[in-house]
Amino acid sequence: MTGTLFLIGVGPGDPELMTLKAVRVLREVPVIAYPRTGEDSTGNDNALALSIARAYLNPLAELLPFTIPMQPGREAAQRAYDDAASEVLVHLGAGRDVAWLCEGDPLFYGTAIYLMARIAGQAPVVVVPGVTSLTAAAAAVARPLGARNDVLKVLPAPLPDEALRAELASASSFAVIKVGRHFDRIRRLLEETGCTEGAMVVEHATTGRQRITPLADFAHDERPYFSTILRYRGIETGVGRGRGE
Amino acid sequence: MTGTLFLIGVGPGDPELMTLKAVRVLREVPVIAYPRTGEDSTGNDNALALSIARAYLNPLAELLPFTIPMQPGREAAQRAYDDAASEVLVHLGAGRDVAWLCEGDPLFYGTAIYLMARIAGQAPVVVVPGVTSLTAAAAAVARPLGARNDVLKVLPAPLPDEALRAELASASSFAVIKVGRHFDRIRRLLEETGCTEGAMVVEHATTGRQRITPLADFAHDERPYFSTILRYRGIETGVGRGRGE
Repeated sequence: MTGTLFLIGVGPGDPELMTLKAVRVLREVPVIAYPRTGEDSTGNDNALALSIARAYLNPLAELLPFTIPMQPGREAAQRAYDDAASEVLVHLGAGRDVAWLCEGDPLFYGTAIYLMARIAGQAPVVVVPGVTSLTAAAAAVARPLGARNDVLKVLPAPLPDEALRAELASASSFAVIKVGRHFDRIRRLLEETGCTEGAMVVEHATTGRQRITPLADFAHDERPYFSTILRYRGIETGVGRGRGE
Repeated sequence: MTGTLFLIGVGPGDPELMTLKAVRVLREVPVIAYPRTGEDSTGNDNALALSIARAYLNPLAELLPFTIPMQPGREAAQRAYDDAASEVLVHLGAGRDVAWLCEGDPLFYGTAIYLMARIAGQAPVVVVPGVTSLTAAAAAVARPLGARNDVLKVLPAPLPDEALRAELASASSFAVIKVGRHFDRIRRLLEETGCTEGAMVVEHATTGRQRITPLADFAHDERPYFSTILRYRGIETGVGRGRGE
Protein backbone atom coordinates (compact mmCIF):
# COMPACT_ATOMS: atom_id res chain seq x y z
CA MET A 1 0.00 0.00 0.00
CA THR A 2 1.68 3.19 -1.20
CA GLY A 3 1.42 6.24 1.07
CA THR A 4 -0.03 9.54 -0.11
CA LEU A 5 1.94 12.74 -0.55
CA PHE A 6 0.00 15.74 0.79
CA LEU A 7 1.18 19.12 -0.45
CA ILE A 8 -0.08 21.41 2.30
CA GLY A 9 -0.56 25.14 1.76
CA VAL A 10 0.01 26.71 5.17
CA GLY A 11 -0.96 30.22 4.07
CA PRO A 12 0.89 33.52 3.90
CA GLY A 13 2.34 33.83 7.41
CA ASP A 14 -0.28 34.15 10.14
CA PRO A 15 -0.79 30.60 11.48
CA GLU A 16 -4.47 31.43 11.96
CA LEU A 17 -4.80 31.60 8.17
CA MET A 18 -4.14 27.88 7.91
CA THR A 19 -7.18 25.87 6.82
CA LEU A 20 -8.98 23.34 8.97
CA LYS A 21 -7.95 20.69 6.45
CA ALA A 22 -4.26 21.59 6.65
CA VAL A 23 -4.40 21.37 10.44
CA ARG A 24 -6.22 18.03 10.36
CA VAL A 25 -3.78 16.44 7.93
CA LEU A 26 -0.74 17.75 9.83
CA ARG A 27 -2.08 16.24 13.05
CA GLU A 28 -2.51 12.85 11.37
CA VAL A 29 0.48 12.21 9.11
CA PRO A 30 3.48 10.27 10.42
CA VAL A 31 6.05 12.15 8.31
CA ILE A 32 6.28 15.92 7.79
CA ALA A 33 8.77 17.22 5.25
CA TYR A 34 9.67 20.84 4.58
CA PRO A 35 12.18 22.95 2.70
CA ARG A 36 14.69 25.08 4.54
CA THR A 37 17.23 27.48 3.14
CA GLY A 38 19.76 26.64 5.83
CA GLU A 39 20.29 27.14 9.54
CA ASP A 40 20.45 30.35 11.51
CA SER A 41 23.31 31.23 13.90
CA THR A 42 21.71 29.23 16.72
CA GLY A 43 21.38 26.06 14.66
CA ASN A 44 17.64 26.39 14.01
CA ASP A 45 16.12 25.84 10.59
CA ASN A 46 15.44 28.82 8.36
CA ALA A 47 12.14 27.37 7.23
CA LEU A 48 9.22 29.74 6.83
CA ALA A 49 6.55 27.10 6.16
CA LEU A 50 7.65 25.16 9.26
CA SER A 51 7.54 28.29 11.40
CA ILE A 52 3.97 28.97 10.27
CA ALA A 53 2.71 25.43 10.93
CA ARG A 54 4.78 24.57 13.99
CA ALA A 55 1.94 24.72 16.52
CA TYR A 56 -0.20 22.30 14.53
CA LEU A 57 2.11 19.39 13.78
CA ASN A 58 1.55 15.83 14.93
CA PRO A 59 4.00 15.75 17.86
CA LEU A 60 4.91 12.16 17.05
CA ALA A 61 5.63 12.83 13.38
CA GLU A 62 9.08 12.37 11.97
CA LEU A 63 10.36 15.72 10.68
CA LEU A 64 12.27 15.69 7.40
CA PRO A 65 14.03 18.96 6.60
CA PHE A 66 15.47 19.40 3.13
CA THR A 67 18.01 22.09 2.49
CA ILE A 68 17.09 23.73 -0.81
CA PRO A 69 19.39 26.39 -2.21
CA MET A 70 17.61 29.59 -3.22
CA GLN A 71 17.20 30.00 -7.01
CA PRO A 72 15.02 26.95 -7.64
CA GLY A 73 15.68 26.99 -11.38
CA ARG A 74 19.35 26.35 -10.89
CA GLU A 75 20.99 22.99 -11.08
CA ALA A 76 21.93 22.72 -7.41
CA ALA A 77 18.33 23.34 -6.38
CA GLN A 78 17.04 20.83 -8.90
CA ARG A 79 19.44 18.22 -7.51
CA ALA A 80 18.17 19.03 -4.03
CA TYR A 81 14.61 18.31 -5.21
CA ASP A 82 15.79 15.06 -6.77
CA ASP A 83 17.24 14.04 -3.40
CA ALA A 84 14.11 15.16 -1.52
CA ALA A 85 11.87 13.20 -3.89
CA SER A 86 13.98 10.04 -3.44
CA GLU A 87 13.78 10.26 0.32
CA VAL A 88 10.05 11.04 0.30
CA LEU A 89 9.44 8.09 -2.02
CA VAL A 90 11.10 5.73 0.45
CA HIS A 91 8.47 6.70 3.05
CA LEU A 92 5.62 6.54 0.54
CA GLY A 93 6.83 3.15 -0.68
CA ALA A 94 6.74 1.88 2.90
CA GLY A 95 3.09 2.95 3.14
CA ARG A 96 3.68 6.08 5.21
CA ASP A 97 1.80 9.27 4.27
CA VAL A 98 4.02 12.33 3.95
CA ALA A 99 3.02 16.00 4.24
CA TRP A 100 5.16 18.61 2.50
CA LEU A 101 4.75 22.11 3.97
CA CYS A 102 4.33 24.97 1.50
CA GLU A 103 4.11 28.67 2.23
CA GLY A 104 0.96 30.17 0.74
CA ASP A 105 -0.62 27.82 -1.77
CA PRO A 106 1.32 24.82 -3.15
CA LEU A 107 0.55 25.53 -6.82
CA PHE A 108 0.80 29.33 -6.81
CA TYR A 109 4.50 29.87 -7.48
CA GLY A 110 5.34 27.38 -4.76
CA THR A 111 8.40 25.18 -4.51
CA ALA A 112 6.14 22.16 -3.98
CA ILE A 113 5.67 22.19 -7.74
CA TYR A 114 9.18 20.79 -8.19
CA LEU A 115 8.53 17.99 -5.73
CA MET A 116 5.14 17.17 -7.26
CA ALA A 117 6.70 16.84 -10.69
CA ARG A 118 9.03 14.16 -9.35
CA ILE A 119 6.44 12.15 -7.39
CA ALA A 120 3.43 12.30 -9.70
CA GLY A 121 2.74 8.93 -11.30
CA GLN A 122 4.65 7.06 -8.60
CA ALA A 123 2.36 7.75 -5.64
CA PRO A 124 -0.98 9.46 -4.99
CA VAL A 125 -0.62 13.23 -4.55
CA VAL A 126 -3.26 15.35 -2.77
CA VAL A 127 -2.98 19.13 -2.88
CA VAL A 128 -4.50 21.08 0.01
CA PRO A 129 -4.88 24.64 -1.28
CA GLY A 130 -4.01 27.56 0.98
CA VAL A 131 -4.42 31.30 1.26
CA THR A 132 -1.92 32.98 -1.08
CA SER A 133 0.30 35.96 -0.33
CA LEU A 134 -1.67 37.63 -3.11
CA THR A 135 -5.05 37.70 -1.38
CA ALA A 136 -3.31 38.29 1.96
CA ALA A 137 -1.69 41.43 0.55
CA ALA A 138 -5.01 42.64 -0.83
CA ALA A 139 -6.64 42.04 2.56
CA ALA A 140 -3.88 44.05 4.23
CA VAL A 141 -4.52 47.08 2.04
CA ALA A 142 -8.29 46.48 1.94
CA ARG A 143 -8.49 46.91 -1.82
CA PRO A 144 -9.80 44.53 -4.43
CA LEU A 145 -7.48 42.38 -6.51
CA GLY A 146 -10.08 42.27 -9.22
CA ALA A 147 -13.81 42.78 -9.48
CA ARG A 148 -16.46 42.26 -12.15
CA ASN A 149 -14.66 41.93 -15.47
CA ASP A 150 -11.22 43.24 -14.52
CA VAL A 151 -8.25 41.39 -15.93
CA LEU A 152 -5.77 40.61 -13.14
CA LYS A 153 -2.16 39.94 -14.03
CA VAL A 154 0.34 38.26 -11.74
CA LEU A 155 3.81 39.39 -12.76
CA PRO A 156 6.98 37.90 -11.27
CA ALA A 157 9.51 40.69 -10.74
CA PRO A 158 12.53 38.74 -12.12
CA LEU A 159 11.00 38.83 -15.64
CA PRO A 160 13.03 40.82 -18.18
CA ASP A 161 12.17 44.49 -18.64
CA GLU A 162 10.62 44.07 -22.09
CA ALA A 163 8.25 41.31 -20.94
CA LEU A 164 7.11 43.35 -17.96
CA ARG A 165 6.67 46.49 -20.06
CA ALA A 166 4.47 44.66 -22.56
CA GLU A 167 2.19 43.27 -19.85
CA LEU A 168 2.03 46.50 -17.86
CA ALA A 169 1.15 48.52 -20.95
CA SER A 170 -2.25 46.81 -21.11
CA ALA A 171 -2.73 46.21 -17.37
CA SER A 172 -5.34 47.79 -15.17
CA SER A 173 -5.05 45.61 -12.08
CA PHE A 174 -1.87 43.72 -11.35
CA ALA A 175 0.29 42.20 -8.65
CA VAL A 176 4.06 42.17 -8.98
CA ILE A 177 5.36 39.29 -6.85
CA LYS A 178 8.83 38.26 -5.64
CA VAL A 179 9.85 41.91 -5.67
CA GLY A 180 12.77 41.82 -3.22
CA ARG A 181 16.02 42.96 -4.78
CA HIS A 182 14.23 43.91 -8.01
CA PHE A 183 12.46 46.79 -6.28
CA ASP A 184 14.25 49.73 -7.88
CA ARG A 185 14.00 48.26 -11.36
CA ILE A 186 10.29 47.50 -10.91
CA ARG A 187 9.57 51.00 -9.62
CA ARG A 188 11.31 52.46 -12.69
CA LEU A 189 9.29 50.20 -15.03
CA LEU A 190 6.03 51.14 -13.31
CA GLU A 191 6.93 54.82 -13.70
CA GLU A 192 7.77 54.33 -17.37
CA THR A 193 4.46 52.61 -18.07
CA GLY A 194 2.32 55.02 -16.05
CA CYS A 195 1.38 52.37 -13.50
CA THR A 196 2.42 53.95 -10.21
CA GLU A 197 -0.84 55.69 -9.31
CA GLY A 198 -2.52 53.83 -6.47
CA ALA A 199 0.21 51.19 -6.32
CA MET A 200 0.87 49.84 -2.82
CA VAL A 201 3.85 47.92 -1.47
CA VAL A 202 2.98 45.15 1.00
CA GLU A 203 5.82 43.46 2.89
CA HIS A 204 5.46 40.31 5.01
CA ALA A 205 1.65 40.30 4.75
CA THR A 206 -0.24 38.98 7.79
CA THR A 207 2.88 38.59 9.93
CA GLY A 208 4.10 40.71 12.83
CA ARG A 209 6.47 42.39 10.38
CA GLN A 210 3.73 43.46 7.95
CA ARG A 211 4.37 46.90 6.44
CA ILE A 212 2.19 48.73 3.92
CA THR A 213 3.57 51.68 1.98
CA PRO A 214 2.20 53.58 -1.01
CA LEU A 215 4.76 53.06 -3.77
CA ALA A 216 5.09 56.83 -4.15
CA ASP A 217 6.24 57.12 -0.51
CA PHE A 218 8.51 54.07 -0.37
CA ALA A 219 11.88 55.17 0.93
CA HIS A 220 13.29 52.45 3.18
CA ASP A 221 16.30 50.37 2.33
CA GLU A 222 15.06 46.91 3.20
CA ARG A 223 13.64 44.99 0.22
CA PRO A 224 12.23 41.74 1.53
CA TYR A 225 11.74 38.88 -0.92
CA PHE A 226 8.20 38.53 0.40
CA SER A 227 6.97 41.85 -0.84
CA THR A 228 4.26 42.44 -3.39
CA ILE A 229 3.26 45.54 -5.30
CA LEU A 230 -0.46 45.73 -5.91
CA ARG A 231 -2.49 48.05 -8.01
CA TYR A 232 -6.24 47.96 -8.46
CA ARG A 233 -7.83 50.27 -10.97
CA GLY A 234 -11.43 49.16 -11.15
CA ILE A 235 -13.90 51.88 -11.91
CA GLU A 236 -17.30 50.35 -11.40
CA THR A 237 -17.28 48.85 -7.94
CA GLY A 238 -17.73 52.12 -6.08
CA VAL A 239 -14.67 51.18 -4.01
CA GLY A 240 -13.44 54.17 -2.11
CA ARG A 241 -16.82 55.91 -2.20
CA GLY A 242 -16.84 56.08 1.57
CA ARG A 243 -13.31 57.33 1.66
CA GLY A 244 -13.69 60.26 -0.67
CA GLU A 245 -11.34 58.74 -3.23
CA MET B 1 -17.84 52.38 20.22
CA THR B 2 -18.37 51.46 16.56
CA GLY B 3 -18.47 47.78 15.71
CA THR B 4 -16.11 46.22 13.16
CA LEU B 5 -17.17 44.78 9.84
CA PHE B 6 -15.38 41.50 9.13
CA LEU B 7 -15.38 40.38 5.53
CA ILE B 8 -14.86 36.64 5.87
CA GLY B 9 -13.57 34.51 3.03
CA VAL B 10 -15.09 31.06 3.58
CA GLY B 11 -13.18 29.40 0.77
CA PRO B 12 -14.23 27.68 -2.44
CA GLY B 13 -16.80 25.17 -1.22
CA ASP B 14 -15.38 22.49 1.08
CA PRO B 15 -16.05 23.75 4.63
CA GLU B 16 -12.74 22.21 5.69
CA LEU B 17 -10.99 24.82 3.52
CA MET B 18 -12.14 27.58 5.87
CA THR B 19 -9.31 29.16 7.84
CA LEU B 20 -8.93 28.93 11.61
CA LYS B 21 -9.39 32.71 11.71
CA ALA B 22 -12.67 32.62 9.79
CA VAL B 23 -13.99 29.96 12.15
CA ARG B 24 -12.90 31.91 15.24
CA VAL B 25 -14.49 35.16 14.10
CA LEU B 26 -17.73 33.42 13.08
CA ARG B 27 -17.98 31.82 16.51
CA GLU B 28 -17.57 35.22 18.22
CA VAL B 29 -19.56 37.82 16.27
CA PRO B 30 -23.14 38.65 17.29
CA VAL B 31 -24.33 39.41 13.74
CA ILE B 32 -23.68 37.35 10.61
CA ALA B 33 -24.77 38.78 7.27
CA TYR B 34 -24.69 37.05 3.90
CA PRO B 35 -25.90 37.48 0.36
CA ARG B 36 -28.49 35.16 -1.11
CA THR B 37 -29.84 35.07 -4.62
CA GLY B 38 -33.31 34.09 -3.45
CA GLU B 39 -35.09 31.13 -1.90
CA ASP B 40 -35.40 27.61 -3.21
CA SER B 41 -38.68 25.77 -3.57
CA THR B 42 -38.68 24.72 0.09
CA GLY B 43 -38.19 28.27 1.38
CA ASN B 44 -34.49 27.88 2.20
CA ASP B 45 -31.91 30.51 1.24
CA ASN B 46 -29.94 30.05 -1.95
CA ALA B 47 -26.79 31.26 -0.30
CA LEU B 48 -23.55 29.47 -1.15
CA ALA B 49 -21.35 31.24 1.42
CA LEU B 50 -23.85 30.42 4.17
CA SER B 51 -24.02 26.78 3.13
CA ILE B 52 -20.22 26.55 3.34
CA ALA B 53 -19.94 28.16 6.77
CA ARG B 54 -23.11 26.86 8.39
CA ALA B 55 -21.47 24.40 10.77
CA TYR B 56 -19.19 27.09 12.21
CA LEU B 57 -21.53 29.96 13.04
CA ASN B 58 -22.08 31.35 16.52
CA PRO B 59 -25.43 29.68 17.33
CA LEU B 60 -26.57 32.80 19.16
CA ALA B 61 -25.74 35.17 16.30
CA GLU B 62 -28.44 37.12 14.53
CA LEU B 63 -28.53 36.07 10.86
CA LEU B 64 -29.04 38.82 8.30
CA PRO B 65 -29.76 37.57 4.78
CA PHE B 66 -29.70 40.07 1.94
CA THR B 67 -31.28 39.22 -1.36
CA ILE B 68 -28.90 40.39 -4.07
CA PRO B 69 -30.00 40.04 -7.68
CA MET B 70 -27.42 38.36 -9.91
CA GLN B 71 -25.56 40.77 -12.24
CA PRO B 72 -23.83 42.88 -9.56
CA GLY B 73 -23.06 45.71 -11.93
CA ARG B 74 -26.68 46.39 -12.57
CA GLU B 75 -28.70 49.05 -10.84
CA ALA B 76 -31.00 46.71 -8.91
CA ALA B 77 -28.00 44.92 -7.42
CA GLN B 78 -26.32 48.20 -6.52
CA ARG B 79 -29.48 49.34 -4.73
CA ALA B 80 -29.51 46.02 -2.86
CA TYR B 81 -25.96 46.73 -1.67
CA ASP B 82 -27.01 50.23 -0.61
CA ASP B 83 -29.77 48.69 1.50
CA ALA B 84 -27.45 46.04 2.92
CA ALA B 85 -24.87 48.66 3.87
CA SER B 86 -27.50 50.78 5.62
CA GLU B 87 -28.69 47.85 7.68
CA VAL B 88 -25.16 46.69 8.50
CA LEU B 89 -24.25 50.24 9.57
CA VAL B 90 -27.10 50.26 12.08
CA HIS B 91 -25.52 47.27 13.83
CA LEU B 92 -22.01 48.71 13.60
CA GLY B 93 -23.25 52.05 14.93
CA ALA B 94 -24.75 50.25 17.93
CA GLY B 95 -21.35 48.72 18.66
CA ARG B 96 -22.07 45.25 17.31
CA ASP B 97 -19.46 43.51 15.17
CA VAL B 98 -20.82 42.13 11.91
CA ALA B 99 -19.36 39.32 9.77
CA TRP B 100 -20.21 39.25 6.06
CA LEU B 101 -19.77 35.81 4.49
CA CYS B 102 -17.95 35.65 1.16
CA GLU B 103 -17.37 32.66 -1.07
CA GLY B 104 -13.68 32.22 -1.83
CA ASP B 105 -11.71 35.32 -0.93
CA PRO B 106 -13.49 38.63 -0.25
CA LEU B 107 -11.29 40.72 -2.55
CA PHE B 108 -10.85 38.27 -5.41
CA TYR B 109 -13.86 39.06 -7.60
CA GLY B 110 -16.09 38.86 -4.53
CA THR B 111 -19.35 40.65 -3.94
CA ALA B 112 -18.02 41.86 -0.58
CA ILE B 113 -16.19 44.50 -2.56
CA TYR B 114 -19.45 46.35 -3.12
CA LEU B 115 -20.28 46.30 0.57
CA MET B 116 -16.77 47.35 1.59
CA ALA B 117 -16.98 50.36 -0.71
CA ARG B 118 -20.06 51.56 1.14
CA ILE B 119 -18.81 50.97 4.70
CA ALA B 120 -15.16 52.05 4.42
CA GLY B 121 -14.54 55.32 6.23
CA GLN B 122 -17.61 54.89 8.42
CA ALA B 123 -16.53 51.86 10.44
CA PRO B 124 -13.44 49.69 10.80
CA VAL B 125 -13.25 46.95 8.17
CA VAL B 126 -11.14 43.81 8.63
CA VAL B 127 -10.68 41.45 5.70
CA VAL B 128 -10.04 37.77 6.48
CA PRO B 129 -8.58 36.32 3.29
CA GLY B 130 -9.71 32.90 2.10
CA VAL B 131 -8.78 30.14 -0.32
CA THR B 132 -9.89 31.20 -3.81
CA SER B 133 -11.67 29.08 -6.40
CA LEU B 134 -8.53 29.67 -8.48
CA THR B 135 -6.10 27.76 -6.27
CA ALA B 136 -8.83 25.23 -5.46
CA ALA B 137 -9.24 24.49 -9.17
CA ALA B 138 -5.48 24.11 -9.59
CA ALA B 139 -5.38 21.75 -6.61
CA ALA B 140 -8.16 19.69 -8.18
CA VAL B 141 -6.23 19.18 -11.41
CA ALA B 142 -2.86 18.98 -9.60
CA ARG B 143 -1.20 21.41 -11.98
CA PRO B 144 0.58 24.67 -11.22
CA LEU B 145 -1.14 28.01 -11.69
CA GLY B 146 2.22 29.61 -12.17
CA ALA B 147 5.80 28.80 -11.30
CA ARG B 148 9.13 30.61 -11.46
CA ASN B 149 8.69 33.60 -13.77
CA ASP B 150 5.43 32.65 -15.49
CA VAL B 151 2.92 35.44 -16.04
CA LEU B 152 -0.50 34.34 -14.82
CA LYS B 153 -3.58 36.07 -16.20
CA VAL B 154 -7.02 35.92 -14.60
CA LEU B 155 -9.59 36.54 -17.32
CA PRO B 156 -13.31 36.98 -16.56
CA ALA B 157 -15.32 35.22 -19.25
CA PRO B 158 -17.88 38.03 -19.74
CA LEU B 159 -15.15 40.28 -21.22
CA PRO B 160 -15.67 41.19 -24.88
CA ASP B 161 -14.07 38.96 -27.52
CA GLU B 162 -11.44 41.48 -28.59
CA ALA B 163 -10.22 42.05 -25.02
CA LEU B 164 -9.93 38.31 -24.40
CA ARG B 165 -8.20 37.71 -27.72
CA ALA B 166 -5.59 40.35 -26.98
CA GLU B 167 -4.77 38.88 -23.56
CA LEU B 168 -4.81 35.28 -24.72
CA ALA B 169 -2.49 36.05 -27.63
CA SER B 170 0.35 36.72 -25.19
CA ALA B 171 -0.72 34.29 -22.45
CA SER B 172 1.12 31.18 -21.39
CA SER B 173 -0.70 30.39 -18.14
CA PHE B 174 -4.20 31.67 -17.52
CA ALA B 175 -7.44 31.07 -15.69
CA VAL B 176 -10.76 31.98 -17.28
CA ILE B 177 -13.23 32.54 -14.44
CA LYS B 178 -17.03 32.96 -14.31
CA VAL B 179 -17.31 30.75 -17.37
CA GLY B 180 -20.92 29.55 -17.01
CA ARG B 181 -23.08 30.51 -19.96
CA HIS B 182 -20.05 31.91 -21.82
CA PHE B 183 -18.60 28.44 -22.27
CA ASP B 184 -19.11 28.01 -26.02
CA ARG B 185 -17.82 31.49 -26.83
CA ILE B 186 -14.75 30.99 -24.62
CA ARG B 187 -13.97 27.63 -26.18
CA ARG B 188 -14.14 29.21 -29.65
CA LEU B 189 -11.82 32.05 -28.55
CA LEU B 190 -9.35 29.59 -27.06
CA GLU B 191 -9.36 27.62 -30.29
CA GLU B 192 -8.82 30.78 -32.35
CA THR B 193 -5.86 31.84 -30.22
CA GLY B 194 -4.26 28.40 -30.03
CA CYS B 195 -4.81 28.12 -26.29
CA THR B 196 -6.71 24.85 -25.97
CA GLU B 197 -3.80 22.48 -25.51
CA GLY B 198 -3.65 21.32 -21.92
CA ALA B 199 -6.66 23.44 -20.92
CA MET B 200 -8.81 21.88 -18.19
CA VAL B 201 -12.36 22.67 -17.14
CA VAL B 202 -12.99 22.53 -13.39
CA GLU B 203 -16.57 22.76 -12.13
CA HIS B 204 -17.60 23.21 -8.50
CA ALA B 205 -14.04 22.73 -7.21
CA THR B 206 -13.67 21.06 -3.79
CA THR B 207 -17.39 20.26 -3.47
CA GLY B 208 -19.24 16.98 -3.84
CA ARG B 209 -20.17 18.10 -7.34
CA GLN B 210 -16.58 18.67 -8.48
CA ARG B 211 -15.98 17.64 -12.08
CA ILE B 212 -12.74 17.88 -14.04
CA THR B 213 -12.74 17.59 -17.83
CA PRO B 214 -10.05 18.30 -20.40
CA LEU B 215 -11.43 21.13 -22.56
CA ALA B 216 -10.93 18.99 -25.65
CA ASP B 217 -13.27 16.32 -24.23
CA PHE B 218 -15.93 18.63 -22.77
CA ALA B 219 -19.30 17.55 -24.10
CA HIS B 220 -21.90 17.92 -21.36
CA ASP B 221 -24.67 20.47 -21.46
CA GLU B 222 -24.49 21.88 -17.96
CA ARG B 223 -22.42 25.09 -17.72
CA PRO B 224 -22.20 26.03 -14.07
CA TYR B 225 -21.32 29.62 -13.17
CA PHE B 226 -18.66 28.27 -10.83
CA SER B 227 -16.52 26.76 -13.50
CA THR B 228 -12.99 27.76 -14.35
CA ILE B 229 -10.82 26.93 -17.34
CA LEU B 230 -7.16 26.61 -16.42
CA ARG B 231 -4.13 26.27 -18.57
CA TYR B 232 -0.56 26.01 -17.34
CA ARG B 233 2.24 26.02 -19.84
CA GLY B 234 5.39 26.24 -17.79
CA ILE B 235 8.39 24.60 -19.34
CA GLU B 236 11.06 24.61 -16.67
CA THR B 237 9.51 23.06 -13.60
CA GLY B 238 9.79 19.50 -14.75
CA VAL B 239 6.07 19.13 -14.05
CA GLY B 240 4.76 15.96 -15.60
CA ARG B 241 8.16 14.29 -15.66
CA GLY B 242 6.78 11.45 -13.61
CA ARG B 243 3.74 11.16 -15.84
CA GLY B 244 5.50 10.80 -19.12
CA GLU B 245 4.10 14.09 -20.41
